[in-house]
Amino acid sequence: MATIDHVSPLAPARFPELPEIAGARFATTEAGVKYAGRKDVMIAELAAGTVVTGVFTKSATRSAAVLDCQEKIGRSGDQGAAIVVNAGNANAFTGKNGVQSTKAVTNAVAQALDVPEERVFSSSTGVIGEPLPHDRITAKLADMAASLSPQNLPDAAEAIRTTDTFAKGAARVIQTSIGEVKIAGIAKGSGMIAPDMATMLVYIFTDAKIERAPLQAMLSELNEKTFNSITVDSDTSTSDTLLLAATGQSGVDVTEDAAFRAALHEVMLDLAHQVVRDGEGATKFVEINVQGAASEGDARTHALAIANSPLVKTAIAGEDPNWGRIVMAIGKSGAAADRDLLTIKFGDILVAEAGWVSPDYSEDAGADYMKAQTINITVGLGLGGFESTVWTCDLTHGYITINADYRS
Amino acid sequence: MATIDHVSPLAPARFPELPEIAGARFATTEAGVKYAGRKDVMIAELAAGTVVTGVFTKSATRSAAVLDCQEKIGRSGDQGAAIVVNAGNANAFTGKNGVQSTKAVTNAVAQALDVPEERVFSSSTGVIGEPLPHDRITAKLADMAASLSPQNLPDAAEAIRTTDTFAKGAARVIQTSIGEVKIAGIAKGSGMIAPDMATMLVYIFTDAKIERAPLQAMLSELNEKTFNSITVDSDTSTSDTLLLAATGQSGVDVTEDAAFRAALHEVMLDLAHQVVRDGEGATKFVEINVQGAASEGDARTHALAIANSPLVKTAIAGEDPNWGRIVMAIGKSGAAADRDLLTIKFGDILVAEAGWVSPDYSEDAGADYMKAQTINITVGLGLGGFESTVWTCDLTHGYITINADYRS
Repeated sequence: MATIDHVSPLAPARFPELPEIAGARFATTEAGVKYAGRKDVMIAELAAGTVVTGVFTKSATRSAAVLDCQEKIGRSGDQGAAIVVNAGNANAFTGKNGVQSTKAVTNAVAQALDVPEERVFSSSTGVIGEPLPHDRITAKLADMAASLSPQNLPDAAEAIRTTDTFAKGAARVIQTSIGEVKIAGIAKGSGMIAPDMATMLVYIFTDAKIERAPLQAMLSELNEKTFNSITVDSDTSTSDTLLLAATGQSGVDVTEDAAFRAALHEVMLDLAHQVVRDGEGATKFVEINVQGAASEGDARTHALAIANSPLVKTAIAGEDPNWGRIVMAIGKSGAAADRDLLTIKFGDILVAEAGWVSPDYSEDAGADYMKAQTINITVGLGLGGFESTVWTCDLTHGYITINADYRS
Repeated sequence: MATIDHVSPLAPARFPELPEIAGARFATTEAGVKYAGRKDVMIAELAAGTVVTGVFTKSATRSAAVLDCQEKIGRSGDQGAAIVVNAGNANAFTGKNGVQSTKAVTNAVAQALDVPEERVFSSSTGVIGEPLPHDRITAKLADMAASLSPQNLPDAAEAIRTTDTFAKGAARVIQTSIGEVKIAGIAKGSGMIAPDMATMLVYIFTDAKIERAPLQAMLSELNEKTFNSITVDSDTSTSDTLLLAATGQSGVDVTEDAAFRAALHEVMLDLAHQVVRDGEGATKFVEINVQGAASEGDARTHALAIANSPLVKTAIAGEDPNWGRIVMAIGKSGAAADRDLLTIKFGDILVAEAGWVSPDYSEDAGADYMKAQTINITVGLGLGGFESTVWTCDLTHGYITINADYRS
């Protein structure tokens, strides 16, 4: 495991204030699953009546915990619920033992918190292919249950980190006509990030009141525009999990509330951007907007081809306004494009139009622009009315350093 | 343009002997298209009766020269033919000026060598989006025509290099029952290499006698198993061109000759492997073989997902037997896989089987294996009878160094 000895230069200035969510309590511990001397396990206890929804990795080699969550997530239930997460070991590709470890952890949490096992959702993140020493987790559960508090969500954000260089949190408080609703979320993720879905663990809590089906629909749709629209290295984890729990304890029904939906979108986008900002070795935050596509799928295909191109990402790392590599990425994506209709902009600078460099473009202006920490690339295809926005980071020596000795 | 101050550690010990091909003569020059003090243009003059076949990039933003070649390649013709190639400028995404530059070059070559312009095939490789100073090329053609020789093919291999750290050549001489046939080829390519097709320029010459249609069919089929089965960084060039010219001057008809086909395959695979061996920053040559797939397409999808995964490639760079990342790549590829049927081998070492690490596997043995310069990864899916082999290299600091300041 590489030592993380610095915080990403793209990190937010500070961890945000997270409001307490009525009906949700948290605890963390140092279980020593893999790391020593740091918190590595978190649990969330969710009051009776909490609705739990989720989105998971589509990887064909997804982990035992993900499969277990997927089996449980579709069920309604009025009893209490729980979430348990460990960092350091993904319990993925661990065969039948992996299934048994997940079962052991969720069963023990169910006992410790007195909730049905079918309402206990677990995640494991870290190294693939090593047996999960689940006894180290279950041994700590009684102490954790005794220390549950609604104020411990920031600690939970710390406990779920692996190669993250900073803890990730986001929150919104919304005033509706019938009362106040709170949303607070945490995330981990820095490498192995790509749709679908963006590889990470995300846990969002709200005191809003809403049924399972509409909340799940809202989560799935917003996921496409947030966590499924970020990429660090095009690699996808076996453990991606996004859980959203609504305790209902505010009594405010948000089923038709546009402000709630907008606030949830903001929390999800904030967390998604933080994952990109913690991209392994990242020094630039990059927004890629493709417009004028013949279809939504084409827009997304082009945007991801640009965002995942090693040549585009290394050019950005080198502060090189190498728009030729963007043309290359569009060309290789397989989606419809007409070379002679392309326009490319860096921020507000028109770089290329009508199949060639713009007569007004100056290389000096492009080079100046690339020195910024946030880079906006806009591509116009001139073929139709569809667009897509994705976010990524640059590809640097830092990525190689972190990933060439992550495990050995 | 980054200075290439070292030769790839994976380079062959020496440039091979290339036999003279009757009916093919070559010349090179220092035209100063972009580079100073080195050969950067080559021409090939092909005798009357030569059959020319080709395969080109499918990029939607392909260059003017590629479009021009594609328009010409399907035509038969008995007159002489020519090939002209410049390095340093790709004449891609250069709008109408690009078309005019290609026309100017091919027209001037036709005049200088007294061949029809519709039989002059051109390629340009290098930076995208800058106007091609074609006058620098056309000014040298008279001198080049005067220096044509069948012995100059090795010089041509030098002239077409961009970021290549070594010139690439391969040849075979075949004894058939009715006489001897020679094949000699050159290639350039080191970065921006991915199907389809593997991004590069390749020119192969033979004195075999064969009609255009069967030769084109043979070339296209062998291309799938060679240049379309290598990847350095998943990026695809706008200029990929593979031309095969058969002068017929041996008088040996190879239309039904299995030995000729096998030899052509060998020459193409040799050149394709040399391109991988010159992958930007490469320190390891990696063969990935996926077996037991439900379809040929699935086998190829899995093999390319592994070969293009930045996490797999950085693990190999770090000599880390991190087979968990191979599981991850299979999981994300989208093709059919069953976690619990997977087997993974490093060379002859069985690493994982039946969904988990093999009981006989030792991490020390895996780590020892990864120290080799050539790494073989075999994945068994256990689903069917299809397989695919692709070749790639590792992802190192060298790739970042080369590509973060290629242009500025």
